[in-house]
Amino acid sequence: MAPAEPPVLALTTGEPAGIGPELVVMLAAQSRPAARVVAVGDPGLLAERAAGLGIALEPLELAPGQAVSEAAPGRLPVWPVALRAPSRPGQLDAANAAYVLETLDVAIAACRAGHAAGMVTAPLHKGVILDAGHAGFTGHTEYLRDACGVEEVVMMLATDLALHATRPGWRGSPALRVALATTHLPLREVADAITAGRLSRVLRILDAELKHWYGLPAPRIAVCGLNPHAGEGGHLGREELEVIEPALAALRAEGLRLDGPLPADTLFTPRHLEGVDAVLAMYHDQGLPVLKYAGFGSAANITLGLPFVRTSVDHGTALDLAGTGRADPGSLRVAVALAAEMAWRRS
Amino acid sequence: MAPAEPPVLALTTGEPAGIGPELVVMLAAQSRPAARVVAVGDPGLLAERAAGLGIALEPLELAPGQAVSEAAPGRLPVWPVALRAPSRPGQLDAANAAYVLETLDVAIAACRAGHAAGMVTAPLHKGVILDAGHAGFTGHTEYLRDACGVEEVVMMLATDLALHATRPGWRGSPALRVALATTHLPLREVADAITAGRLSRVLRILDAELKHWYGLPAPRIAVCGLNPHAGEGGHLGREELEVIEPALAALRAEGLRLDGPLPADTLFTPRHLEGVDAVLAMYHDQGLPVLKYAGFGSAANITLGLPFVRTSVDHGTALDLAGTGRADPGSLRVAVALAAEMAWRRS
Repeated sequence: MAPAEPPVLALTTGEPAGIGPELVVMLAAQSRPAARVVAVGDPGLLAERAAGLGIALEPLELAPGQAVSEAAPGRLPVWPVALRAPSRPGQLDAANAAYVLETLDVAIAACRAGHAAGMVTAPLHKGVILDAGHAGFTGHTEYLRDACGVEEVVMMLATDLALHATRPGWRGSPALRVALATTHLPLREVADAITAGRLSRVLRILDAELKHWYGLPAPRIAVCGLNPHAGEGGHLGREELEVIEPALAALRAEGLRLDGPLPADTLFTPRHLEGVDAVLAMYHDQGLPVLKYAGFGSAANITLGLPFVRTSVDHGTALDLAGTGRADPGSLRVAVALAAEMAWRRS
Repeated sequence: MAPAEPPVLALTTGEPAGIGPELVVMLAAQSRPAARVVAVGDPGLLAERAAGLGIALEPLELAPGQAVSEAAPGRLPVWPVALRAPSRPGQLDAANAAYVLETLDVAIAACRAGHAAGMVTAPLHKGVILDAGHAGFTGHTEYLRDACGVEEVVMMLATDLALHATRPGWRGSPALRVALATTHLPLREVADAITAGRLSRVLRILDAELKHWYGLPAPRIAVCGLNPHAGEGGHLGREELEVIEPALAALRAEGLRLDGPLPADTLFTPRHLEGVDAVLAMYHDQGLPVLKYAGFGSAANITLGLPFVRTSVDHGTALDLAGTGRADPGSLRVAVALAAEMAWRRS
């Protein structure tokens, strides 16, 4: 049975010097998404960014865990977190790294307590969090994994469903979903990180979550090779023969529907994407350039394997755009819409 | 001054068991490109594939170096090379590896002798050429480089110019051109292959050839980083700081117009592609999935740095499609059109 009210989503406002706060303000001013969105951040900062853009929007401070059925026009519901230092657009300050992490902690706690069905995150800046002394911080995805005490999560990017609907000659799925077997690793470490164990864990999560959040009873996943041309029969690398193919064979025996390993450069064409629900790329720059090219302004990042929904924008803090009003809230709108859809469709 | 007649292009028919011969036949039957195309292959094979598709097309055997101003309707000019063994669609035979290489040698000789302005190649099958004992064979591009005695060539893929002309919101170039710093290397060897020397050679060739063949007086090239997020200030790899940035700085001092190193996953978006004439990707699967996704059916491969024009289809032999008539000659048509354009526009 569908819940009586739209799901609550916690929306963290990200690096305060980046475009995150103003995207949240622009989103709140422009659209009424199919969710009850509560911003997590500094109310004064949000009011200041709204004023800077000439948007009439006043923060509505809520108590922890509190939500409102419908915010009055011009009001932005907020779970407040206080900035550690004043923030100017474009100027990073390591003092606010703790602020950014606290917004995540507040959102995670709300999800875990059932006060929110999921969280949507505006971009943070990894460099300044590392510079502030949080050694080993590699991004939202890994932080959420550790905070939830799960062994592995999977990063997936998706475009909105309408992407290919009007493209002449396109026979593949109207949306594109690309999950990653490895995420934020230097390229020289990727080949050794592709193990049968990792592939099994990632593909089992991807399969289970496509069923759970997307209502697909038997999702079909296309898997990229690691090497150019998927190793071309061993001539351009042997990981396909020695690691990837045996791992896929074992998973097929468990019932997973897997294509590949396929050459990444031809996989993203209608002939190979037809009937495919998601693609697994072996590493970041094998899968994400095509996803972001396809879905520029209308793609979002999804973390699979957590006990709640989590989506994110597909772009960075864009410090050079912060405060100019030229940032595009398209990806944030898609991230909120996808999170709302997942929360409704949960099976 | 423009030549009086369209340029002659030698069109090698590729692996005889693949889709190459039938694509050549389909192209000859469908369109009259802005070039005098001479097929290089076995006349009997071409006649057989034409008959198999129900296409009325008869090979017209020419003497070495001979061309004809205009072929009569239904005739396909051919520089003949004899198959070593009969060939059936879909069935590789190592005996014909020597045939495939001879078609290349004939085309190269015609170009070097000035009988052709350039060559266009249908796909070959690297595996069967290696199996036939040609150890170290890694593809057309490297074979041409060695045959012409040049130190380095650059592989570039391009879509046709009309690609983005009607895409809503697209502000970048209507074509997409992606050159590669490394080509057919196992992924684990890529990081060590990115040296300042290689980047300098590749970027100088790319810059010079964009001027020479495309008539761009000051081409602008966007360069990808090696690591995800272009290393994110050293946090995800140090090659950008230690190798790529210094190499680009030295080339900028010579007058090259270079952006980057930029994160590959956001480079292929309108904001970064605006005004960019070509992108340099560090490796195969960083640049080609997006290019082939963008240009499916209308992209071609160009070898830069040779003493003549060389283009190729962007796909493989598709053994499973051979003989079915379902192969799409779109990429071959673009390859011929791009080669003809380059030959005309040479400055």
